Amino acid sequence: MTRDHTLSNVSEKVRSGKFSFEDYLSACLQRIGDNEERVQAWVCVNEAVAHRQAKAMDQALSSGISLGPLQGIPVAVKDIFDVAGLPTLAGSELRSDHIASADAPVVRRLRAAGAIILGKTVTTQFACFDPSVTHNPWNLSHTPGGSSSGSAAAVALGMSPLALGSQTGGSITRPASYCGVVGFKPTWGTLPGAGIVPVSYHLDHPGLLARSVADIKLAFDVLQGYRSPSIGTAPSLSTAQAKPPILGLLDEYFMETADEQVRQATLAAVERLRSAGAIVNRLQLPKSFAVVHRNHKVIMAVEAAEYHAPWFPGRREMYGKHLQALLDMGHSIPATEYAAALAHQRLFRQELSGVFQQVDFLITPSTSDTAPGTLETTGDPRFNSPFSYAGTPTISLPCGLGGNGMPCSLQIIGPGGKDLKLLEAAQWCESHLKWNHRPGLCV
Amino acid sequence: MTRDHTLSNVSEKVRSGKFSFEDYLSACLQRIGDNEERVQAWVCVNEAVAHRQAKAMDQALSSGISLGPLQGIPVAVKDIFDVAGLPTLAGSELRSDHIASADAPVVRRLRAAGAIILGKTVTTQFACFDPSVTHNPWNLSHTPGGSSSGSAAAVALGMSPLALGSQTGGSITRPASYCGVVGFKPTWGTLPGAGIVPVSYHLDHPGLLARSVADIKLAFDVLQGYRSPSIGTAPSLSTAQAKPPILGLLDEYFMETADEQVRQATLAAVERLRSAGAIVNRLQLPKSFAVVHRNHKVIMAVEAAEYHAPWFPGRREMYGKHLQALLDMGHSIPATEYAAALAHQRLFRQELSGVFQQVDFLITPSTSDTAPGTLETTGDPRFNSPFSYAGTPTISLPCGLGGNGMPCSLQIIGPGGKDLKLLEAAQWCESHLKWNHRPGLCV
Repeated sequence: MTRDHTLSNVSEKVRSGKFSFEDYLSACLQRIGDNEERVQAWVCVNEAVAHRQAKAMDQALSSGISLGPLQGIPVAVKDIFDVAGLPTLAGSELRSDHIASADAPVVRRLRAAGAIILGKTVTTQFACFDPSVTHNPWNLSHTPGGSSSGSAAAVALGMSPLALGSQTGGSITRPASYCGVVGFKPTWGTLPGAGIVPVSYHLDHPGLLARSVADIKLAFDVLQGYRSPSIGTAPSLSTAQAKPPILGLLDEYFMETADEQVRQATLAAVERLRSAGAIVNRLQLPKSFAVVHRNHKVIMAVEAAEYHAPWFPGRREMYGKHLQALLDMGHSIPATEYAAALAHQRLFRQELSGVFQQVDFLITPSTSDTAPGTLETTGDPRFNSPFSYAGTPTISLPCGLGGNGMPCSLQIIGPGGKDLKLLEAAQWCESHLKWNHRPGLCV
Repeated sequence: MTRDHTLSNVSEKVRSGKFSFEDYLSACLQRIGDNEERVQAWVCVNEAVAHRQAKAMDQALSSGISLGPLQGIPVAVKDIFDVAGLPTLAGSELRSDHIASADAPVVRRLRAAGAIILGKTVTTQFACFDPSVTHNPWNLSHTPGGSSSGSAAAVALGMSPLALGSQTGGSITRPASYCGVVGFKPTWGTLPGAGIVPVSYHLDHPGLLARSVADIKLAFDVLQGYRSPSIGTAPSLSTAQAKPPILGLLDEYFMETADEQVRQATLAAVERLRSAGAIVNRLQLPKSFAVVHRNHKVIMAVEAAEYHAPWFPGRREMYGKHLQALLDMGHSIPATEYAAALAHQRLFRQELSGVFQQVDFLITPSTSDTAPGTLETTGDPRFNSPFSYAGTPTISLPCGLGGNGMPCSLQIIGPGGKDLKLLEAAQWCESHLKWNHRPGLCV
């Protein structure tokens, strides 16, 4: 039941008496009960409070009171976002004494729209590269990706229809792709970063994971503060109305270096979109792309090192080895190199915006490979970090399975600030990709 | 003649046949001819081209063609802004082979509104602290301030009614104050920085110097791209309509550390504003003010060092001793310290915006002293750099003379983004300050 509905379906069904919010919550909790021991997506589940809230939402509805477009919808919150009264561990024992005194603004907005905060999901340590305990629901021996590992796994398994995630390199797009769910990173600066444990100010993006673009769109409307007046009335796009987009497929770097099964799945997906009427052009990247990855790392290392300076290197042993290396790098960089990287980031942002004179959106595979068959890595963010660097909005849409049975996805990239336009185009693409797969695990 | 008119007066007089644009230009050139040898405000004066343009403007007008709200108005351009076909020396022989291939966007906008680019004015070396050759028109043994030294001196002497300047610390406010003219620094990011030799991305502000707030307002409308349809019709505020503002006078740090003659001139000016109906409150600074000056210097040093890295330290001997010290400092700073300064800048910006919940505008003396009686320093920017750091708009209004006969000014600071609101309030203040002084030199 929890995987058969979009959020507006749930609202409709509850309003028409098919089931209650409490039934829906119970079904989510059932999915958690059935799978959590093996998958380990959650840091904590707020079961008792969630039940009380769902009951209150049902009562409100039966009294004709609408509490917002997300009324009664359970949400999973990556454990770097503050939820009042709960710890924000950020995957580290260093924060074991932290209890959030207030909701992060993005959490507050979801709650104000009627959402039920179901619990906190597993993140890699401080949303960086050291793998978490979470397994990939499609195959337990594979990584779910990171850093929003728990959010992606929970949404894939129907434990929660919606999750908050965040991305500095590829921390939404990669786990969404590896777990076969939709992941959305809005334009940098669109959503408030307050109440969220940061990695890197100039790269951090709060965002969303869900099972459909429509669900992402509904939640994003709420996060932006466009609160719809009542349940079920949030704006939605008729995909029939949307014009097929002009897409720019990036061969250079992306298609050229993707592994063969990802390349094949991408070409097949692109062919479906082309058949449906999309125009697909081949595009060149701006020259400034050449040093994007290096500069992304400089900015991330320096800003993470600055944030962690009160604890690192004094408590080095508390940090995972990847994060240690990142922070060491951050401390070794001269300010002028970091300033040059920030200047380059502004240049790349400007040059990339020029590319959108030629096409509506860019497309690439979401990841260079499918989820690696190990828990020793969270995979490679190199297809995503250029767009975290650019601050442009991206969405990851599942589009097929690799030969190994693991999901592949398309990354669609829009111009900065055109988040809604991107979501509408993604809805069009989604309707033609006809993704209808579920993790083999725990059917 | 060149000091008796606001820009709209000039337009009116020309339209009514009292004098021509060429007459007005000739009067400006006469002021230059009479004073330049002693004051040294100009790097180059584009006399022949300016005459041709003025003549064309007169002809256009007599044919009923309006070329924009600045038609026929000579403008002095600080020699860090590119003017197509002229060198941009930025006060350094390092750039002696540079000829600008295009106007900086701000110059282009002025020109498109009918302005005549009269020439380039002297800047300190790379708009930093090493004094330039320019003298203060009020007393040749005093500094005109810096770095927009030539722009301030030229406007004070009626060599040009309007000048472009720029500020990273106090480079508009200080010379405007020392030379007894109006200086305006818009909100950071409001005007494009392209085509301008930078000091420091996160602190640089292009801006304006003129002899009245109305003139500043007219030119700022043009710079923002709000091009008025024809000469003389630019929006102007009736000061009678403006409501007296609620002002917050900053005792802490500012009034407390200003020298006695500046303090007295400020208190007298504040008293005049209060008598005219302004409410003047005493305000506390946010706690984060304590490290503003230190962090301002960190950001400026690092970003300047990054920009100059291709030439410095390889050609160290080409740099003034103050700039050498600044660049050395920039190269010695670890990236994490610079990142912390940028994070603090964001914090201070946010905390300062809270202060504007209590008052409409802040006021301080523009400078802690009057122009020092030496050409060995350009004076102290410490009353201005906090607002370059904050990115808030500021305007400097002459308000009286110190015991030494040198000008004193009020600095009025508005909330970020409220530039027009600040200009309107400044116009109200200006009408009650009754400043009517001219440099004793060259009457």
